[in-house]
Amino acid sequence: MRTLVLLRHGQSEWNELGLFTGWTDVDLTEQGREEAAAAGRVMAGEGIAPDVVHTSVLIRAIRTADLCLDEMARQWIPVRRSWRLNERHYGALQGLDKKQTAEQHGEDKVRSWRRSYDVPPPPLPPDDERNARFDPRYRDLPPDVLPATECLKDVVERMLPYWYDDIVPDLRAFGVVLVAAHGNSLRALVKHLDDISDDDIPSLNIPTGVPMLYELGEDYRPVNPMDPLERCLGDIEAVRAAAEAVARQAG
Amino acid sequence: MRTLVLLRHGQSEWNELGLFTGWTDVDLTEQGREEAAAAGRVMAGEGIAPDVVHTSVLIRAIRTADLCLDEMARQWIPVRRSWRLNERHYGALQGLDKKQTAEQHGEDKVRSWRRSYDVPPPPLPPDDERNARFDPRYRDLPPDVLPATECLKDVVERMLPYWYDDIVPDLRAFGVVLVAAHGNSLRALVKHLDDISDDDIPSLNIPTGVPMLYELGEDYRPVNPMDPLERCLGDIEAVRAAAEAVARQAG
Repeated sequence: MRTLVLLRHGQSEWNELGLFTGWTDVDLTEQGREEAAAAGRVMAGEGIAPDVVHTSVLIRAIRTADLCLDEMARQWIPVRRSWRLNERHYGALQGLDKKQTAEQHGEDKVRSWRRSYDVPPPPLPPDDERNARFDPRYRDLPPDVLPATECLKDVVERMLPYWYDDIVPDLRAFGVVLVAAHGNSLRALVKHLDDISDDDIPSLNIPTGVPMLYELGEDYRPVNPMDPLERCLGDIEAVRAAAEAVARQAG
Repeated sequence: MRTLVLLRHGQSEWNELGLFTGWTDVDLTEQGREEAAAAGRVMAGEGIAPDVVHTSVLIRAIRTADLCLDEMARQWIPVRRSWRLNERHYGALQGLDKKQTAEQHGEDKVRSWRRSYDVPPPPLPPDDERNARFDPRYRDLPPDVLPATECLKDVVERMLPYWYDDIVPDLRAFGVVLVAAHGNSLRALVKHLDDISDDDIPSLNIPTGVPMLYELGEDYRPVNPMDPLERCLGDIEAVRAAAEAVARQAG
């Protein structure tokens, strides 16, 4: 049996401020840190001991993994990081206030950027200082690979190579793999694992700071298909309330 | 040019208590955390940006690397961990009070365990609960590889394969490599790099929390040989005082 645990980072500084974040590298708030530690305690309580951890290259996911593993005294396990687990790139919306953007562009437009499968927001211009090509962590990626905006479909396409080539081999070699990442990169992975349609996946809200447990078979698909939210460790009612809060906050 | 930065972890909980630590997995004290952060600020001030970090599998080195990289906003770089960078295994002395041990076994005996090149302390018995074979992080290592005690010569022998097979390839691929480890694993590495004799190496005291900078040539040897303590970044007088303090504490 291969065990996969997905963990979405908790509250970040820009979540708190109500700004579009995407690839902006903001840290967790104190609440977000506590969510990460609580996730570690829940996993320890369930007897789940990750053998290896994968994170994005964004500090809020890295910090979440570190604080979670601290609670299990498993900081020593192998660590993998990849930009392919990053949050969806939010293009020119990054750094904008969510409410102001809705007032400026209209609720419908913003909802389509946020909740459609294949409509990306306007891209960041190449010379915008926020463009990822100026960030040393992406220096080896050519412009045709490095996004300036993404829809969820784009995230699925850039995430899947990492799933097949990096996470699956670790599941085979190690058995228990923790992936600490973001709302949309995890949504992309859940779409693949549970074979969720393009139409249905945008409305799946993955709760923050709650470990989701997948037992995978030899085909690296769930041995027991179920509603993804039922995979959450901890109190299911609290989890559903948290998912609804995420949905409301997302407008 | 290849740049190697060595960083010895700062004060741990057992340093503070005056206990032999070895492979015991104790965390940093608040002072140790501050030393790690200060090392990161010194490196940032010198414009040294690690491309990849190697640590032991002991929390005090892992924490040191994390806090150091936090100061440089470079938590996203690739991470490698290996037991081959662990502190010297201190055998049956682990957990004993340094002063009491000297009173019990005699100053000369303890000095020979601590400061000879090839005299290991008594081993931990196989069934002692502190034996590393009960620790999941070493579960894949057979008993003939996993130490129950080590002299410095043993550390050199188990560290060098990691240098050649893991750190050197990263120096080639990345250019700037940070190694966050321990007094004796770094002493072993400095012995190799600077070709220090078996007789001289035990008296080299590597200061805690001070980055040591090596510029390496195509043979992965220093391009500018010098006293290792002169490689320390920061105030050289403060560094020498710190090294002497380490020597005094070591008795």
